[in-house]
Amino acid sequence: MAKILSGKEVATHNTREDCWIIVHGKAYDVTDFLPEHPGGSKIILKYAGKDATAEYDPIHPPDAITTNLPPEKHLGSVAPDTVEKVEITITDEEKARQGRVALRPSLSEVLNLHDFETIARLVMPEKAWAYYSSAADDEITHRENHAAYHRIWFRPRIMRDVTQVDWSTTILGQKSSMPVYISATALGKLGHPDGELNLTRAAGKHGVIQMIPTLASCSFDQIMDAAVPGQTQFFQLYVNKDRAVTKRIVQHAEARGIKGLFITVDAPQLGRREKDMRQKFEAEDPSEVTKAGSDGVDRSQGAARAISSFIDPGLNWDDLKWFKSITKMPIILKGVQCWEDALEAYDRGCAGVVLSNHGGRQLEFSRSGIEVLAEVVDHLKRARKLTFPNEKFQLFVDGGVRRATDVLKAVALGATAVGVGRPFIYAFSAYGTEGVDHALQILHDEFEMNMRLLGAPSLKNVVPEMVDTTHIGSHIVSVPDDRLYMSNYESLRTAELKAKSKL
Amino acid sequence: MAKILSGKEVATHNTREDCWIIVHGKAYDVTDFLPEHPGGSKIILKYAGKDATAEYDPIHPPDAITTNLPPEKHLGSVAPDTVEKVEITITDEEKARQGRVALRPSLSEVLNLHDFETIARLVMPEKAWAYYSSAADDEITHRENHAAYHRIWFRPRIMRDVTQVDWSTTILGQKSSMPVYISATALGKLGHPDGELNLTRAAGKHGVIQMIPTLASCSFDQIMDAAVPGQTQFFQLYVNKDRAVTKRIVQHAEARGIKGLFITVDAPQLGRREKDMRQKFEAEDPSEVTKAGSDGVDRSQGAARAISSFIDPGLNWDDLKWFKSITKMPIILKGVQCWEDALEAYDRGCAGVVLSNHGGRQLEFSRSGIEVLAEVVDHLKRARKLTFPNEKFQLFVDGGVRRATDVLKAVALGATAVGVGRPFIYAFSAYGTEGVDHALQILHDEFEMNMRLLGAPSLKNVVPEMVDTTHIGSHIVSVPDDRLYMSNYESLRTAELKAKSKL
Amino acid sequence: MAKILSGKEVATHNTREDCWIIVHGKAYDVTDFLPEHPGGSKIILKYAGKDATAEYDPIHPPDAITTNLPPEKHLGSVAPDTVEKVEITITDEEKARQGRVALRPSLSEVLNLHDFETIARLVMPEKAWAYYSSAADDEITHRENHAAYHRIWFRPRIMRDVTQVDWSTTILGQKSSMPVYISATALGKLGHPDGELNLTRAAGKHGVIQMIPTLASCSFDQIMDAAVPGQTQFFQLYVNKDRAVTKRIVQHAEARGIKGLFITVDAPQLGRREKDMRQKFEAEDPSEVTKAGSDGVDRSQGAARAISSFIDPGLNWDDLKWFKSITKMPIILKGVQCWEDALEAYDRGCAGVVLSNHGGRQLEFSRSGIEVLAEVVDHLKRARKLTFPNEKFQLFVDGGVRRATDVLKAVALGATAVGVGRPFIYAFSAYGTEGVDHALQILHDEFEMNMRLLGAPSLKNVVPEMVDTTHIGSHIVSVPDDRLYMSNYESLRTAELKAKSKL
Amino acid sequence: MAKILSGKEVATHNTREDCWIIVHGKAYDVTDFLPEHPGGSKIILKYAGKDATAEYDPIHPPDAITTNLPPEKHLGSVAPDTVEKVEITITDEEKARQGRVALRPSLSEVLNLHDFETIARLVMPEKAWAYYSSAADDEITHRENHAAYHRIWFRPRIMRDVTQVDWSTTILGQKSSMPVYISATALGKLGHPDGELNLTRAAGKHGVIQMIPTLASCSFDQIMDAAVPGQTQFFQLYVNKDRAVTKRIVQHAEARGIKGLFITVDAPQLGRREKDMRQKFEAEDPSEVTKAGSDGVDRSQGAARAISSFIDPGLNWDDLKWFKSITKMPIILKGVQCWEDALEAYDRGCAGVVLSNHGGRQLEFSRSGIEVLAEVVDHLKRARKLTFPNEKFQLFVDGGVRRATDVLKAVALGATAVGVGRPFIYAFSAYGTEGVDHALQILHDEFEMNMRLLGAPSLKNVVPEMVDTTHIGSHIVSVPDDRLYMSNYESLRTAELKAKSKL
Repeated sequence: MAKILSGKEVATHNTREDCWIIVHGKAYDVTDFLPEHPGGSKIILKYAGKDATAEYDPIHPPDAITTNLPPEKHLGSVAPDTVEKVEITITDEEKARQGRVALRPSLSEVLNLHDFETIARLVMPEKAWAYYSSAADDEITHRENHAAYHRIWFRPRIMRDVTQVDWSTTILGQKSSMPVYISATALGKLGHPDGELNLTRAAGKHGVIQMIPTLASCSFDQIMDAAVPGQTQFFQLYVNKDRAVTKRIVQHAEARGIKGLFITVDAPQLGRREKDMRQKFEAEDPSEVTKAGSDGVDRSQGAARAISSFIDPGLNWDDLKWFKSITKMPIILKGVQCWEDALEAYDRGCAGVVLSNHGGRQLEFSRSGIEVLAEVVDHLKRARKLTFPNEKFQLFVDGGVRRATDVLKAVALGATAVGVGRPFIYAFSAYGTEGVDHALQILHDEFEMNMRLLGAPSLKNVVPEMVDTTHIGSHIVSVPDDRLYMSNYESLRTAELKAKSKL
Repeated sequence: MAKILSGKEVATHNTREDCWIIVHGKAYDVTDFLPEHPGGSKIILKYAGKDATAEYDPIHPPDAITTNLPPEKHLGSVAPDTVEKVEITITDEEKARQGRVALRPSLSEVLNLHDFETIARLVMPEKAWAYYSSAADDEITHRENHAAYHRIWFRPRIMRDVTQVDWSTTILGQKSSMPVYISATALGKLGHPDGELNLTRAAGKHGVIQMIPTLASCSFDQIMDAAVPGQTQFFQLYVNKDRAVTKRIVQHAEARGIKGLFITVDAPQLGRREKDMRQKFEAEDPSEVTKAGSDGVDRSQGAARAISSFIDPGLNWDDLKWFKSITKMPIILKGVQCWEDALEAYDRGCAGVVLSNHGGRQLEFSRSGIEVLAEVVDHLKRARKLTFPNEKFQLFVDGGVRRATDVLKAVALGATAVGVGRPFIYAFSAYGTEGVDHALQILHDEFEMNMRLLGAPSLKNVVPEMVDTTHIGSHIVSVPDDRLYMSNYESLRTAELKAKSKL
Repeated sequence: MAKILSGKEVATHNTREDCWIIVHGKAYDVTDFLPEHPGGSKIILKYAGKDATAEYDPIHPPDAITTNLPPEKHLGSVAPDTVEKVEITITDEEKARQGRVALRPSLSEVLNLHDFETIARLVMPEKAWAYYSSAADDEITHRENHAAYHRIWFRPRIMRDVTQVDWSTTILGQKSSMPVYISATALGKLGHPDGELNLTRAAGKHGVIQMIPTLASCSFDQIMDAAVPGQTQFFQLYVNKDRAVTKRIVQHAEARGIKGLFITVDAPQLGRREKDMRQKFEAEDPSEVTKAGSDGVDRSQGAARAISSFIDPGLNWDDLKWFKSITKMPIILKGVQCWEDALEAYDRGCAGVVLSNHGGRQLEFSRSGIEVLAEVVDHLKRARKLTFPNEKFQLFVDGGVRRATDVLKAVALGATAVGVGRPFIYAFSAYGTEGVDHALQILHDEFEMNMRLLGAPSLKNVVPEMVDTTHIGSHIVSVPDDRLYMSNYESLRTAELKAKSKL
Repeated sequence: MAKILSGKEVATHNTREDCWIIVHGKAYDVTDFLPEHPGGSKIILKYAGKDATAEYDPIHPPDAITTNLPPEKHLGSVAPDTVEKVEITITDEEKARQGRVALRPSLSEVLNLHDFETIARLVMPEKAWAYYSSAADDEITHRENHAAYHRIWFRPRIMRDVTQVDWSTTILGQKSSMPVYISATALGKLGHPDGELNLTRAAGKHGVIQMIPTLASCSFDQIMDAAVPGQTQFFQLYVNKDRAVTKRIVQHAEARGIKGLFITVDAPQLGRREKDMRQKFEAEDPSEVTKAGSDGVDRSQGAARAISSFIDPGLNWDDLKWFKSITKMPIILKGVQCWEDALEAYDRGCAGVVLSNHGGRQLEFSRSGIEVLAEVVDHLKRARKLTFPNEKFQLFVDGGVRRATDVLKAVALGATAVGVGRPFIYAFSAYGTEGVDHALQILHDEFEMNMRLLGAPSLKNVVPEMVDTTHIGSHIVSVPDDRLYMSNYESLRTAELKAKSKL
């Protein structure tokens, strides 16, 4: 137990079959964990028998290794002066990336949330981009999430006094300066060393609510500690097969002051994100890659499974009773995708639902949250005479939001608030906390302007009659084009300068 | 008061904190005005302590500085011989532009209104292009304005005697040679030194009505003076927070013979025109740009606010009574976007409404005027038994018009006339008054031909049955494409010359 | 009268103000005709005072000049040996074109009608391509004509004996080997020296009916003479303001055995074909081009007007009685575009109508013939209990047809036959008579195959239930794309060869 | 009869007019067969008078020549040592292709069925690619087959215990590990020397059913012999004009244990596959190509006819009785395309139908199988009160399937199983049997994940309410774009790095 290992001894365990590593001065036997490591085994094997702290720190919550490895794999402390120092070599690609970081435009040139994505893609590590930006299968649903908003048009009102406009609201009884919350997204440290703390700080400054993810790179308590007094936070929960673990997490969250428990229900298994998988292959050493078809092992698939292996695919409606028995926090189901399940959630006493397809990362050809919202509002009115927004049963949507106009469309249709995820990740990946701060300021500016242009002094005035949703469910794919005909068609040309046409 | 300043004295006030400039021989303290200048502070600071007349003249109405600066900032005359002459240096970019001006094709090669835009973009100053061409947010509404016309198809009639065809009409009781008026657009001198006067002259020649903008670069009286006897003009009004100012403007307009007062109601705050904002950043000195996020000041945003700072966001229906008390001109609301507000305008005694989204420059995802027209005609018929076109309550649309066929579609649906803005700006930016003249002639030619082809001897014969508007409200966004599938699909090829395939 | 001029004398009349030319040994004063010449005045001025025969012959019917010029401008014969020989210089562009002619693929490589267009565009003179391929305004209708067929889908039947399939039919009582006729198109010699004769010969060989155009490059009698015994021909008529001329033409046609008179009713004025107009400007000498806006003369416009100047825009329903008084030929109106006019034509005793928008060359945003067909069949059934195809009142469509499947869709909907124009022009422009022959053979092959695949032994079995026309009238324009979002979206990639990804 | 020929004698028959070849040591007179050879005559003429075995073997079933040539053309054995050895020369193109084969990525990098197509296109012979990938006419239907699935969206359910998910099923009473069968496709050896055997082996391993094609490159018995004990196989039948041949084939299939007879009913004549035809021309010697139009012979067309010449276009409903008299196998019609024919098949006692348009290779503008499925289910419910999936009358679809989600959509709508063709061909063309193995594994993985994400523990839970098919029949073609307007429109730009915009 109190045995002190020497670096030399650890160093002998440096193979795939017998692999120890050192993190924060302690040694761990990770041999059995290798195939389950979400980041792949290769990156661990690089540090087999060595001190992996420098590589480990920027990506993992401090307790990741201790909570994931069974106690018998905790080998104890290593005498510090016996451990060889490990230097991280910087690749040319990484150098080029750092060069681009230095060339970021000033934040005042970032005019909208799209801009953060452009800059982030250029300045963040490739694997972070691949992880965040990827979505399921052909990414149809991912793009549909944004496109769906473009099928909704406004019917603004005029000649209303909009000298003062107010877009603040309350979410689950908590004040929010705008009808937007920061949605839970995993592994924030991939994009920025401060990870989710960037979100906490900016949210605190702007009076916006953050939803803390189960799979954060920072520990839950680190995030809670970063909040300012009175700052509201929600918690997103992946339900563990081991309910004791879940109970501990939930009750700890409640004890620390979390105001809403969002249980993810759309991820009994993580989706295929092939952009991410393909990136992994490129990062691997080709000489190591398994021979075609020879062993039936799909290692990338394995990685996806590993990260989700603790999530319980057996979670079902009967579990709701148990959740209510262990917490008083309002319970919201995140990932509802049809009115039947929204109704069930209402009947079983949930405080609300998030109409979401997990940012397009789970079931391909799921419909967008905004489309489902219209369906849910319609059916719950018919079935239970509910009107929305509704204090007792709140509707949220997420996915594809880039503008305050998107949010206002959801509000007009009955949503209490809208979750925004990737744009804030891109904001901090490119500019840290200041980026998120600026992103929220952009939203504030857009809300102010668009409330005025809609003729709505407050969110109460943003009503269903203000949107035209006739085509919200039009899933149209054009007939394939006649390429022979079009290749023959000669485009019209405009007039040209003499220089071009005559000289 | 009668104090004569020396150039030397003025020259000492040459900092951001203490900034004087000379215009037309008089000195002004513009220190406080710097952050509000629509063109940005930088261009003023360039002339801090100096004579700015040469830079000022091409862009501003002569009285812009005197009306915008409070009297106490008017510092009095400067002794002319004490003022150092300021030379405007011509950049390489500007030289290239002037070179392109020399290469403009002859007007007879300009076959349609699109051509003016092509040439104007090449020969006008970049900031003028950015200001005119930009629109709100993602410019969806801006493009939709044009696209909406393409969802309306004709049902032409045959075997009618169309030897003589007549497309003249009356607008608010005034004769017009075509069902088109020149819509109000701001800052005409950005595109051409004569600014709005180009429009006045060509309109006078063609018997077309011009709507004079509040934010013209030429003064209102200059424009009125440029009209030929009997020429009809309308006036577009931004309502000032200070109603006394508004009253003075309106009554002066009426006194000078304006025949219709078009009150803009869709701009309580100016929209985000990011193309314009981005252009401004490029024009700025990068070394001056505020450090990312450090002060929360969004200077571009500030510019947009400055130009609109006098506009009253408190304008509302109750104000209409007051307007009627100060003028006998017919009052038309410009910027109505749903039937409910058109009905309200009718019930409150307006002479008409312009169904408009401000050229796509205000609320993004506003519907096109032509789409709203169909809705308004339908509902006002049901609610008040009105038929259109209607002498008592006239409907106008603007936005996206490029062809006489567009206009005839609006007329068929019930519009009295259609406003055209940008195309005429592009016409004079490229060719001055002659450009506008030619643009109007093109429209005349198109009207003659299309009236014949429609089988309509006069506008009375352009009736609803002549258009198929089934899909006017179809806001369709295709399902995102399957890029994997399409990247695998090999296009069909046509036959090829032997040279290509065999040699 | 019998005076013999000398070439020298003619040569002195060589200015725009006094312009004589020699054609086929006779002199003509064309001064007044210059501005009306469809091909522009410049090409005539090039031969002012000279022998223009070599330039004239390939484009004009032999009698074009004698019928277009009033008798007093016929100056009489010129002594042959006094005339200087004129050499036509061949431009580099023309040499390149002739080089491409030599590289045409063999006809057996031409697999479909699209291929002719590809090759024709490469090997025909640029002005011929511009004239044939151009259409009105933005060419939306032109392309819609083809696109409309792609909104109609088949419901084929199986398990029917299709060993023998028969796609022959009768049109206006005349046999045709397929439900297709060769539609009238003007100026055939632009594409090939034999002009319309190419069509006559191939039509005769294949038992297909040709519709002879008023504006043929070959004379009417030349075309009639080229027919084989028993070959059926129709005649397309532009009605002349001078009804005596029209009467002479019609009665001559009847006398020569024409079996159907197709009166064009969609062209009281010729449409704006800007592609053609732009080509004309490029062919002009830039130094000659009128100064911008200086004289108000639109010369290109003038050309279009000239060719159509004899067409009577006063033609109307009352004229039908007169036509019936001068001929016994069945009368068909060509260019009907809504059911109301089809009904009128039926009620006034026409033998049929061609539902056509003139190949998209007249009114922009006219609907396609195939779309109008569905409307006409529906309404005439309701209004007059007619069923189609109908021997007494036949429906034809033209525009956009490229495949036998297009034709079969029209037949299923009730058309007796379909007119095909441009594809045959492209066929002879690229390969002369053999090209048209091959084009017809391709159609035969396609008919045979598609009748089998439809499960239709004869055209009688091609019934409305075989087509799904739900979306025939869906004039959809997608919401403009979000370019910011899409520029950020990173496409999925497929797997790659190692060479690309690893080396 | 027992005469032994010498190679020298055979070598004298080496012209188009008198052509013998040697295959597997026997000589054949193929003179009359030349124009009918599906692969063209040129490749045979290359071996006129020589030993063609090396060229013959990889493409043909061993008995192809003996069954296709009448007995009198079988000339008998050739003395082996008298035959000159023929070397196949490898072209540069072929060498490059073999180079690409060596660079194939490992199978673990092949993430989905699309990837096989990408790799196959790069590594398979060009003519194989042209044959497999081509489809009818403009290939609209071919692409629509895939696109149609994208108009169907999911309505997944949550909170269901999906710890165990089961996607196995039974097809025609036979077990299948997934609701997918390997559809019949011709000429497998074009892509891989083992041809259809690749499919047999992988199907056996995975418990999936293979449908053996009439036009396989391997002989029927070879394929049957390659199956593992208990492996289920179906048979696809082209009905021969000579019913005795058909009877022999059918009864042999039944005797060997085939469990379902799929009679192709959508190919009375093979479709025009112009991509394939064009490839053939490129492969031909240009000097041989017939002069344009000179003889009316369409050689490519001839090839298509040859391969299908034995297929009976007279096949009709009355033949079904005969089929039932000669076999007890369940009979399924493959290629039904409307509900009327599905109903007829049901009424006449078929065991099911495949709703298919032959992979888009037959009638262009046929609707996709998935669209027809919705129609069939709807009408058979109304007409015969059938519900689906249905043990007594099973519905299958094929065409355009690339993902398990596609399959699950079909299952939700009532299909028993889905046929997949091209993807498996591409899999073995790129990787042989291992490729098909991996393709099936991918489908298994996708089924597992998507069943979970749908909330469906078994296929019984995949119900109609889980799909939104509102737009399944929306055959939309957008109005042609306004190219003038769009060429003038300047796209919005995102923020840029300083490096790009400033340096």
